[in-house]
Amino acid sequence: MSERKMIILTEGHSNPHTAKTGCSILRYRPEEVVAVLDGTLEGQDVPEYLGVGEGLKFVGSIDDALEANCLLIGIAPPGGKIPQSWRPIVFRAIECGMNVMSGLHDFITDDQEFVSAAQKQGVELVDVRKNDFTTIARRPGFREECFRVHTVGHDCSIGKMLTAVELTEGLKERGVDAKFCATGQTGIMLEGSGYPMDRVIADFISGAAEQLVLENEQHEVLLIEGQGSLVHPSYSAVTLGILHGSAPQALILCYEVLRDTVTGIEHVAIPELSEIRRIFEVMSNIHQPCEVIGVSMNSRRVSEDEAKAERQRVAQELGLPVTDIIRFGRDELVDAVIEARSRYLQSLRI
Amino acid sequence: MSERKMIILTEGHSNPHTAKTGCSILRYRPEEVVAVLDGTLEGQDVPEYLGVGEGLKFVGSIDDALEANCLLIGIAPPGGKIPQSWRPIVFRAIECGMNVMSGLHDFITDDQEFVSAAQKQGVELVDVRKNDFTTIARRPGFREECFRVHTVGHDCSIGKMLTAVELTEGLKERGVDAKFCATGQTGIMLEGSGYPMDRVIADFISGAAEQLVLENEQHEVLLIEGQGSLVHPSYSAVTLGILHGSAPQALILCYEVLRDTVTGIEHVAIPELSEIRRIFEVMSNIHQPCEVIGVSMNSRRVSEDEAKAERQRVAQELGLPVTDIIRFGRDELVDAVIEARSRYLQSLRI
Repeated sequence: MSERKMIILTEGHSNPHTAKTGCSILRYRPEEVVAVLDGTLEGQDVPEYLGVGEGLKFVGSIDDALEANCLLIGIAPPGGKIPQSWRPIVFRAIECGMNVMSGLHDFITDDQEFVSAAQKQGVELVDVRKNDFTTIARRPGFREECFRVHTVGHDCSIGKMLTAVELTEGLKERGVDAKFCATGQTGIMLEGSGYPMDRVIADFISGAAEQLVLENEQHEVLLIEGQGSLVHPSYSAVTLGILHGSAPQALILCYEVLRDTVTGIEHVAIPELSEIRRIFEVMSNIHQPCEVIGVSMNSRRVSEDEAKAERQRVAQELGLPVTDIIRFGRDELVDAVIEARSRYLQSLRI
Repeated sequence: MSERKMIILTEGHSNPHTAKTGCSILRYRPEEVVAVLDGTLEGQDVPEYLGVGEGLKFVGSIDDALEANCLLIGIAPPGGKIPQSWRPIVFRAIECGMNVMSGLHDFITDDQEFVSAAQKQGVELVDVRKNDFTTIARRPGFREECFRVHTVGHDCSIGKMLTAVELTEGLKERGVDAKFCATGQTGIMLEGSGYPMDRVIADFISGAAEQLVLENEQHEVLLIEGQGSLVHPSYSAVTLGILHGSAPQALILCYEVLRDTVTGIEHVAIPELSEIRRIFEVMSNIHQPCEVIGVSMNSRRVSEDEAKAERQRVAQELGLPVTDIIRFGRDELVDAVIEARSRYLQSLRI
């Protein structure tokens, strides 16, 4: 994937929430992005709308960035359908010889019109979520020294993938052999490996999470990306499948300040953070010891001063290290992982 | 489905565990079964091996029961593949003009040889698990007076479907408008409706459970069949998806006496029953009140005296009504549902 030159398509959906796939690629693979396409914002600064993409302005059409070789569908709407108004844009990209990469539930490779157009032009359509995984979890026993850290959260789209990616980088800087394990479409696009857990058949979610660990357990530390939340009534099954399949020894609890209702079901309240912690520890401790070792706070909606006060409050309430990785850096959580791993390795020797 | 005349195929797998689909059909739809086929047990009494099927002897081939119009694949092995040695039997049934019904993960309608043979003979292949459900749960709010009872358990294959079916019948006898809501292949074969939850794409499990309630909430009481267990590391995701999607007000906890390791992963211990209850109550109480109101004990592996002692012990320990429906009848649990519903309706009026 090293020679991708991508146009990220966010047409009409250029906000950090709906366009979270595009934003993550801009944050972690900026060298692979040649343009961000949103005709409704042509000429405007990308960072103003997406919070990332320094130096980029939105382009208005495929023809404004013909040096690209890949169109990336940059959104992940609930239900995962491609907007009707985007179809002409996708066809134009194909006509111009670009591959198309999508993480949507609605597969572009199941769309006969896209498939015919792609065949005619000899370009590739890639559905990151497509899989035919059908292996049941068997708890084969993982390599004992492999320390598995899982990022979980109080809701969707609050920074579980970002936290896992950042901690992986931070651990590597400290000389730890760490590996990011992707469980969602964006993480897979970044890492080039992983399993699209929310698209696996229900019976096999834990099996896929188990497989992800088995493929990577030679590393010292795995940072396993979480999905959804145990308190999100729509997605809790996916969350639990990853938790039980990957059997982590440590959790990082991610949350967004001021987020108090469930994404997509705004009439349902999110419980208190201490309650979320309790729920995750109940479910992660059924068959092996596991604890929450730190909190990754997403404070984008409050001021720096408010964020500092909140950080202190939560650290005190939960007795855990807390940081906003974007605002205050990741060091405190990297320390927490290193310390938890030391304690764990020590416990093996007893 | 009223005119089905079925041969149940359990060839080489005639035990209550692997052949649980066949056993349930024999228990609840005996009038639709003309034969049970297992060449390895030809001429022997079916009840001796399956515990149900009074008066039936195993037949050795399709040709021994040509009055049948449907071959039912009577097993549900982990992973869900059709045994290679069964293929000639299936082809013979098709040749003899029988439809074939399967609840396996491996679809008979995806097998080109079966499909060609069926087309030639003009018979129907039915995959009960096949679905293309892709709706996300939205917590739309269910009809307030609809009382939802969900059967959960400490492991797979211990009587969650049986309990839901029996309580539905028991409530109807008492004049309550009760409805069994099937969530697995066997329940769907019995009821003729329902969703195969373990075969739904992970993101949509809760959505399917929600849909199941929406389609049936006109009834006074729903008995929602549970799957797997929150403490089964392979299937807990499916379990939680149904729990959160159907949002029950009451749970019946099902367990088998002497079952202390997880089915399919025998090196993993099942926690104590009181701990199972706590785990289910934590996960069922996140967004609405819900409690365990009774225990359905499966005592097939112990003597009648041992079962009585166990029943008393558990009733005392958990402070709940306990019965083995097969051995001691269902009345106590029917009472428990009626009382819990009264308390719930009362609480609505306050």
